[in-house]
Amino acid sequence: MTKLRIGLGVDFHQLTEGRDFWLGGVLVPHHKGALGHSDADVLLHAICDAMLGAASLGDIGLHFPDTDNTYKNIDSKILLKRTLELITEKGYQVVNIDSTLCLQAPKIKPYVVQMQETIAGILNISTEEVSIKATTTEKLGFVGREEGVVAYATVLLEKGGER
Amino acid sequence: MTKLRIGLGVDFHQLTEGRDFWLGGVLVPHHKGALGHSDADVLLHAICDAMLGAASLGDIGLHFPDTDNTYKNIDSKILLKRTLELITEKGYQVVNIDSTLCLQAPKIKPYVVQMQETIAGILNISTEEVSIKATTTEKLGFVGREEGVVAYATVLLEKGGER
Amino acid sequence: MTKLRIGLGVDFHQLTEGRDFWLGGVLVPHHKGALGHSDADVLLHAICDAMLGAASLGDIGLHFPDTDNTYKNIDSKILLKRTLELITEKGYQVVNIDSTLCLQAPKIKPYVVQMQETIAGILNISTEEVSIKATTTEKLGFVGREEGVVAYATVLLEKGGER
Repeated sequence: MTKLRIGLGVDFHQLTEGRDFWLGGVLVPHHKGALGHSDADVLLHAICDAMLGAASLGDIGLHFPDTDNTYKNIDSKILLKRTLELITEKGYQVVNIDSTLCLQAPKIKPYVVQMQETIAGILNISTEEVSIKATTTEKLGFVGREEGVVAYATVLLEKGGER
Repeated sequence: MTKLRIGLGVDFHQLTEGRDFWLGGVLVPHHKGALGHSDADVLLHAICDAMLGAASLGDIGLHFPDTDNTYKNIDSKILLKRTLELITEKGYQVVNIDSTLCLQAPKIKPYVVQMQETIAGILNISTEEVSIKATTTEKLGFVGREEGVVAYATVLLEKGGER
Repeated sequence: MTKLRIGLGVDFHQLTEGRDFWLGGVLVPHHKGALGHSDADVLLHAICDAMLGAASLGDIGLHFPDTDNTYKNIDSKILLKRTLELITEKGYQVVNIDSTLCLQAPKIKPYVVQMQETIAGILNISTEEVSIKATTTEKLGFVGREEGVVAYATVLLEKGGER
C-alpha cells in the first residue's frame, strides 16, 4: 500500500477596513484586511487544514480554537510551524502543496515569491514544493463584492519517506 | 506508472425547517435540516462523488438520479456502500479521504468521531483513513446566512494494492 | 520520495446572454454563455490551473494574462495544449484528472463524453483519465441564480514515469 495521503483545506475570512491583510505569511498592502481571531491569514489556514486533514489530525479549529486567548491575534506562521510539528510527530512529510487564493483585489502576483519562500522556509521544503495561485471570482458573490476572501489548498503527504 | 488516482467531490444542499439534518451518516440535532431528494447528506454525497470521480465512474447524479423514486428519502449510507461496490468492481480501494464541511451552525465537533466510524465502517477502512473537518464561512454567503451547506471531499484511490 | 504531485484548480465566470457557452472544449447549447477575455471555458481553465499548480508553474493568469490581446477570444483548447507543453518540459505527465462543474443549467450529461474525448485528445491520455462531474448548487448563491459558473479540477502528475 502507498505511503501517500491526500488533504484538502478551505478557509474563509471577511474583509474589513482597519485590519492588516496577511496572506501566505506576507503583509499585503491594501485598504482592507481579513477579520479573525488570529491574524486571519486565509492561505496559511487553508494549508494548515490540508496538512492536518491528510494526516487525520482533525482541523485547525480543534488545535487552535478561536475561543482560546493564546491564539488572539497570533501570527499564523506559528500555527503553520506547529502544524508541521504535529504531522512530523506522526511520521509524515510534505510532498507538495498547491493552493488558490480567491480574491477580487489586490493583485497578489508581486507577493507570491515571498509567500512561497515564507511557507517553504517554515516547512523546510523547497519553494518548488509550494504553489500559490490566485483568481478573482469575476465580481461574483461575496468575494466579488470584496466582502471576503477564500483559499483552497491541497497537499500530498508521504509517510517515512527519505527526501 | 503509479496505481494511484485522485478525486474531488463538492456538494451543496439548502437548509430548511422541518427536515432531519444528516451529516456523515449521523443525525445531527438542529432546528434545520438539508433539503433533497434523498436524505440530503451533503458530506456523504461529496465523498461518493470524490470516489466515483477518482475511479472515472461518472457522478452521483448518474448513478443515483434524483428523478428516480428508488432514491426518494434514501439513506445516503446505502449510496456510499453502493459507491464502494462500484469502485471495488473496477479494482480500486480507498487510501484515504479528507473532507471539509462548510456550515455556520451547529458545531459538529461532538459528532465527528461517530461520522468517522460510520463512514469507515461502510468502506471497511480504519477511522484514521477518514478525516472530517469543519469550518464556518465567517457569516459570508448562503452558508453564512444558514441557507445552505457545502461539503468538499478529496480521496486517494489505489488499484489492486494489498492493505 | 514519490514522483507524484498534486494540484487543484478553481475557476469562476459570469454567465450572460449573447455569448457562446464553451465547457470542456465543447460548445453547449444554452441561452447564456460565460463571459471572459478568452472563450471563458471554466472547466478547461480549472484543469489548466490544476496542472500548472501541481507542476509549480504559477497560474493561468501568469501564462495567459487577460491583459494580453494574444488571448482575446482564444479557444481554451489552445491554452490546455500549451499547459501540457509546459508540464512536459518539466518532465511531468498526467496520471488522472477529476473535475466538477457547478452550474444550475443546462444539464451537461449529454456532452460529458465529448468533453472527455476532447480533453483526453489534447493531453494524449485515455478518456478514463479524465473525469467530469456536474452538480447544481440547489439554487443557492450566484451559481443557483444562474449568474455564474464555477469549476473545480484536481490532478495527479507523475515525474518521468513510463505509461
